[in-house]
Amino acid sequence: MKKLLRLGVLGASGLVGRQMVRLLEECPWVKSDPLLLVSEKSAGSAIPFRGRLLICEKVLAEHFESLDLVLFSAGGEASRYWGPIAEKCGVWVVDNSSAFRMDGDHLLIVPEINGHLIEPISETGPSGGLVSNPNCSTIQIAMAVSGLEKEVGLQEVHVTTLQAVSGAGQSSLDILRAQNVSGADSTREERLLAGNVWPSIGPATDEGSFEEETKVVNELRKILGRSTDLAITCTATRVPVEVGHCAAIRIVCNRDISAEEAAALMVSQPGIIVSSDPHHFKTPVQMAGKSEVHVGRLRQDPGNPRALLMWVVADNLLKGAAWNSMQIAALLAGQDAW
Amino acid sequence: MKKLLRLGVLGASGLVGRQMVRLLEECPWVKSDPLLLVSEKSAGSAIPFRGRLLICEKVLAEHFESLDLVLFSAGGEASRYWGPIAEKCGVWVVDNSSAFRMDGDHLLIVPEINGHLIEPISETGPSGGLVSNPNCSTIQIAMAVSGLEKEVGLQEVHVTTLQAVSGAGQSSLDILRAQNVSGADSTREERLLAGNVWPSIGPATDEGSFEEETKVVNELRKILGRSTDLAITCTATRVPVEVGHCAAIRIVCNRDISAEEAAALMVSQPGIIVSSDPHHFKTPVQMAGKSEVHVGRLRQDPGNPRALLMWVVADNLLKGAAWNSMQIAALLAGQDAW
Repeated sequence: MKKLLRLGVLGASGLVGRQMVRLLEECPWVKSDPLLLVSEKSAGSAIPFRGRLLICEKVLAEHFESLDLVLFSAGGEASRYWGPIAEKCGVWVVDNSSAFRMDGDHLLIVPEINGHLIEPISETGPSGGLVSNPNCSTIQIAMAVSGLEKEVGLQEVHVTTLQAVSGAGQSSLDILRAQNVSGADSTREERLLAGNVWPSIGPATDEGSFEEETKVVNELRKILGRSTDLAITCTATRVPVEVGHCAAIRIVCNRDISAEEAAALMVSQPGIIVSSDPHHFKTPVQMAGKSEVHVGRLRQDPGNPRALLMWVVADNLLKGAAWNSMQIAALLAGQDAW
Repeated sequence: MKKLLRLGVLGASGLVGRQMVRLLEECPWVKSDPLLLVSEKSAGSAIPFRGRLLICEKVLAEHFESLDLVLFSAGGEASRYWGPIAEKCGVWVVDNSSAFRMDGDHLLIVPEINGHLIEPISETGPSGGLVSNPNCSTIQIAMAVSGLEKEVGLQEVHVTTLQAVSGAGQSSLDILRAQNVSGADSTREERLLAGNVWPSIGPATDEGSFEEETKVVNELRKILGRSTDLAITCTATRVPVEVGHCAAIRIVCNRDISAEEAAALMVSQPGIIVSSDPHHFKTPVQMAGKSEVHVGRLRQDPGNPRALLMWVVADNLLKGAAWNSMQIAALLAGQDAW
């Protein structure tokens, strides 16, 4: 392994990017200041790091020549443009966009589930590459069901998500806050986010879903190493919450399983807190700022002893984005991911 | 049928009670002013009716002697106390509380589904009785699935609800509005409703549910005339929306069915708007103030040709409460219910 990895963050001034910088700051194996890269319009922004302010620079191809590992959170278009440039410069990228997630050549990693697929960066290993960070909702759903998939086997996963507005970025969060005070701005073609629910996240797809739902279905199968033999449905909704995604999940396993047995199997992996009390749960506000995934309201379906219901909550900016990316970076750096 | 029914509203000053008075006002078969009955603390409240103000009176047993038909929306305790008194006075009660819903002696009615069970009030029929209005979420779920139950047969119904705060009454709505401006009041033991989601409505039950979920399961079976052979699960959540309940539903039918065929069967009953476009839907804000139930995002489960997904939205104060009650009252009065 390289002794001193030179780190960067692309999209450092965004909601997730700022969380990435904050996590790098607290990370003992990060020895030097990361290079903070942004688009032209955000260049010059100052972001605190270990008691000083780092100035964000407009991203240029030459930046990648001096870096080893860069966290990307600047959207799909930026990833598609800068990803191949970075790889060509021998840089390892942890990409939080959906650009390469379903690409057969790139890993899609939730460290607690399939982190073993990552080879630490070394002088003898490949020079540069890209590992994708999954969709925010997919990560917490995968965390909740992977223990049961491994130990018992899953037949069906049916999900309704209730997703926070921060998942759509800082501009949507600003709109929600403004609408909470004064309603929708009728001069803009704004969605009314405040006091409302939208069962449509991302563009419509040909299969009758919206893109967020397709991401959950496809990415969950890839992370679990399953194909279409695992039946998955998803209805993804946006709720007027700032931070913290919820998912109401019903799964059908290969055999009968009680909530108590399921809870015991689920907590065998790190990063997850499970309560087998069917009345115990967390709200998104309670999980905001936390890195764990919380599984509550775990109960057997009275109509099917192979089926379980659960309520899964996690911070979409942390485990759903920055923290999971940081864990992937840690594995690439040959460090513990938790 | 009695020529001129003397009408009353118990709980007239509440959120649902006010909607009931407004609907009576617009109802052509209502010829005289209703008697507005309330608890001691709300006595003296003035409520507009056909251009004048009616004063709410503290409910007394003697009030029921001069009435034929009373809409109750004052909570379970008031219904349990005043229901038998009203019945003994020969009054017909339409009860919006849960007090008698699962009681074998009382009907539980969604007029479009099982309104035929109601006999209009007549000189020769029974003198007095009580008909229950179902739980708000149950009504819209029942409306969405009853056409398919009738024509195809249902095996499973799995629901996640996203319920508006008005379902918990005026005091909760006041708390939400105050919290939207200044956060939770830490001096009271207030739930943080604003910007948050609670997967717990009503008290915990012995079966691992919260009471709202048990209501949906039990009441839906009673309305559809089914027993435990219809498998139902429900996760009921409270979202920071003022008016309009949503339900993400997955059903499994007795045979393969396409979204197009399902949509055609569902709209054969009144009171429901169905779109077979999987991308079309309504939000709660869009359905607030409307009496219909909207079924959108109707699509076949790609993993099971007998299963369908849908997104169901209705005004919880109207079809979920006051409008459904008014429709029951219309049937009792021998009038058209829609």
